[in-house]
Amino acid sequence: MSEPVRRGRPGHDQQSVLRVAIELFNRQGYDATSMGDLARELGLTKSAIYHHVPSKEHLLERALDEALDELAAALDTVQADASRTPEERLRAAVRSSVVVLAEHLPAVTLLLRVRGNTPAEQHALARRREIDHRLAEMVREAADTGAIRADVDPLLASRLVFGMVNSMTEWLRDGSDGAALADTVTSLAFDGLVRHRA
Amino acid sequence: MSEPVRRGRPGHDQQSVLRVAIELFNRQGYDATSMGDLARELGLTKSAIYHHVPSKEHLLERALDEALDELAAALDTVQADASRTPEERLRAAVRSSVVVLAEHLPAVTLLLRVRGNTPAEQHALARRREIDHRLAEMVREAADTGAIRADVDPLLASRLVFGMVNSMTEWLRDGSDGAALADTVTSLAFDGLVRHRA
Repeated sequence: MSEPVRRGRPGHDQQSVLRVAIELFNRQGYDATSMGDLARELGLTKSAIYHHVPSKEHLLERALDEALDELAAALDTVQADASRTPEERLRAAVRSSVVVLAEHLPAVTLLLRVRGNTPAEQHALARRREIDHRLAEMVREAADTGAIRADVDPLLASRLVFGMVNSMTEWLRDGSDGAALADTVTSLAFDGLVRHRA
Repeated sequence: MSEPVRRGRPGHDQQSVLRVAIELFNRQGYDATSMGDLARELGLTKSAIYHHVPSKEHLLERALDEALDELAAALDTVQADASRTPEERLRAAVRSSVVVLAEHLPAVTLLLRVRGNTPAEQHALARRREIDHRLAEMVREAADTGAIRADVDPLLASRLVFGMVNSMTEWLRDGSDGAALADTVTSLAFDGLVRHRA
């Protein structure tokens, strides 16, 4: 029986290999995971795995890009909406961050654990800092309009609010309802724990 | 030249060895750190390090106990104050958590990275879950009095607020002013980002 020459084997496309790799990296750590581990998890031989992916670092790059591309695209959409006030845009940014986190939970979890041990990780950290900078700027703009409290430094407020969002990777399960959670998190970030009486 | 027989060498007491170990565990990961690495960092031979500490796991246990003992003691103090309302106790719990995090930053950072790979880590995770449970109960009690919003599940509210607190380990520097930060974090958690007009 002859098979056409192609990359990949039956039952494993590039995307499913990436899913399994991200899950392994999160479970046992990127550094501690070998291509042999990944092959075993996929039921492939160690040499067959290289039909699917050129290297472990390539998988890491694709995983981190997935998370970063989604977060950056969500911010692009929010910031492009000139009909909204800075406060509304900031609310939308918090909301979108939760939705992206829930919908791309394994990739975002991996991104948040990156410490900069490889060039791919350093590149991802630089992109993450750029996103953090954009978020802090959005807090500053909303504070400038008077809608947001001025007694907390915008950078600190941004770190705390998006730290709350990011902390969800510690307990959120894959497949959770991101939209409902996003409303709760946004409401808590803007209005706090205190009960508002009518 | 003869020295008296004792545990430890000049310049290194048990506490300073622990400080260096925690710093190394946080920098390069507990699993990836060997007793040889620790000896090198302290300027000791690999055999001399065993004059100070029986094992790497012993250091991990002491580090995790430091963080957990401080967090549990802070909660004990807060919960023992019957003169306060449940809302005031919850505010004090958030505040104390930030103070403990700032004052024991390396140990708390290590605690929050523990994934349960060893018996010591599993024990620490169990203690951490107990603390999380106590915090969620405090949110529930405050919600029952009507002081705290009832539209957010107390467990979710607790995870988000203390997730915000814990996220500070990502950027806080050792030696920061915990008291000032604690006020800001508590105010943000209870009153939110929105400006309150008089």
